[in-house]
Amino acid sequence: MSGKPTIAVIGLGAMGYGIAASLVRAGFAVRGCDVRAEVRERFARAGGTAAATPAEAARGAEIAIVVVVNAAQTDAVLFGDGGAASAIAPGGVVIASATVPPEYAESLGHRLAERGLLMIDAPTSGGPARSAEGQLTLMSSGAPAAYAKAEAALTAIATKVYRLGDAPGIGSKVKMINQLLAGVHIAAACEAMALGIRAGVDPNTLYEVISNSAGSSWMFQNRVPHILAGDYSPLSAVNIFVKDLGIVADSARALTFPVPLTALAHQLFLMAASQGHGGADDTSVIKVYQALAGLELPAKA
Amino acid sequence: MSGKPTIAVIGLGAMGYGIAASLVRAGFAVRGCDVRAEVRERFARAGGTAAATPAEAARGAEIAIVVVVNAAQTDAVLFGDGGAASAIAPGGVVIASATVPPEYAESLGHRLAERGLLMIDAPTSGGPARSAEGQLTLMSSGAPAAYAKAEAALTAIATKVYRLGDAPGIGSKVKMINQLLAGVHIAAACEAMALGIRAGVDPNTLYEVISNSAGSSWMFQNRVPHILAGDYSPLSAVNIFVKDLGIVADSARALTFPVPLTALAHQLFLMAASQGHGGADDTSVIKVYQALAGLELPAKA
Repeated sequence: MSGKPTIAVIGLGAMGYGIAASLVRAGFAVRGCDVRAEVRERFARAGGTAAATPAEAARGAEIAIVVVVNAAQTDAVLFGDGGAASAIAPGGVVIASATVPPEYAESLGHRLAERGLLMIDAPTSGGPARSAEGQLTLMSSGAPAAYAKAEAALTAIATKVYRLGDAPGIGSKVKMINQLLAGVHIAAACEAMALGIRAGVDPNTLYEVISNSAGSSWMFQNRVPHILAGDYSPLSAVNIFVKDLGIVADSARALTFPVPLTALAHQLFLMAASQGHGGADDTSVIKVYQALAGLELPAKA
Repeated sequence: MSGKPTIAVIGLGAMGYGIAASLVRAGFAVRGCDVRAEVRERFARAGGTAAATPAEAARGAEIAIVVVVNAAQTDAVLFGDGGAASAIAPGGVVIASATVPPEYAESLGHRLAERGLLMIDAPTSGGPARSAEGQLTLMSSGAPAAYAKAEAALTAIATKVYRLGDAPGIGSKVKMINQLLAGVHIAAACEAMALGIRAGVDPNTLYEVISNSAGSSWMFQNRVPHILAGDYSPLSAVNIFVKDLGIVADSARALTFPVPLTALAHQLFLMAASQGHGGADDTSVIKVYQALAGLELPAKA
């Protein structure tokens, strides 16, 4: 037995499973919890310990990593029935990884502190593939004492850990700004490819030229190949940006701050979701233009 | 004397001067024309030949490169009083480098062909610094015969020449899509930095993290340092995108095609211009948010 702390990973979805598996590989005792029995069993076969509830996963653990979809789920797995917050070892660390409103991250820090728990506000960047490889980027903030306890675990799951401040909230603020840009850039990539196709430009040529020009973005380079392949199976779904740009718009509104581009991009993701593409790849925003203007998109090979 | 053809460069602004100087370095006989006498004199001292009118520059030249701001200027220097089109050698090549509506580039090709001239539709990407170094990117299209005549000249001014089709118009279409993305990305960078600052995030930290994350774009990385330095002296002016996003919006409208993000970004550049920032750096779009919401931006050192 190593002296490494026991870690609970709550949520074994595309991101959480990769995080849990990376920790197992690094030699931690990992208890994984998910609502889906088949995922728990898969995790047990991969060297982890399956737990039926967040509380069971977190019992006596010094670190609990919460990798769920949003603030409501984060709250439920920590404070709901069978929640983890009352089960974690005293002085333990909650690493909260969902993209949540910064004001929620701040208040969560206070509520955990009232129970004698530490928190690292640690939204992730990198997607499922990077998660599986233990190569995430974390936009994080929290007390130095929390980092001291969690350092080995963070090293196992991420190659880059930005430490952005001493309190929860800053990590989520930076993630929020990242999502603002990521969402607007995806929508812009769809608008650009749609207009280019309508104007008669070969879409593969357009992708190659723009990727090497001043109009490029990380998202343009990463996402447009899905459009070119006609493959809208979700690597990251439309609904993620319905949620995340909603967080940006709500947080900006709470600051009485205008974000017109964000609001419009949010509407474009909502339009795609309203067409029934909420669970499909986020490049499905191009189908908004297709539905309106009858665009001929590249077909799946 | 070398056997290299005589080349006219019409327009010795930030882009044109660099192109003309690159051609002089490459050993061409270059006649440069500009409305400003001091620029003409500077070019003559640098080894070129100063010409007072486009016609004088183009007299008997086999290649004329038009490096002006827009379609109206392109038309004036070719077909107006003292225009170049009637002076170029028979069978000569016009290389048109302004960002213009694709439909204008197409029609210009036809009008030049009626006079027995060839045309390369060749909008540039890269900015004044790359122009001065002969390292532009050209998004170009035109007849093979035009490229055959212009090849050595193109090699002298650009490191990357995309040949996108056999007729004028395609080059301008690809450039239009590039400008759509570039403009939206600049406006998005300004919205993102503005919200981040208002939310209390350190702008330098925000720049560093986003530059290395999925929210990054070529424009974010290139332009945000101007904001961080509080330096809005124009490397590329707000008015360029008032013009270029106007071209995108007009061309899309002519195709009955909706471009909501483009239209909104265009309005944001117009708002900055309406504040009096039309001649300032295009990152001045952040001052729209500042004017509305009282943002504290980084000061000039």
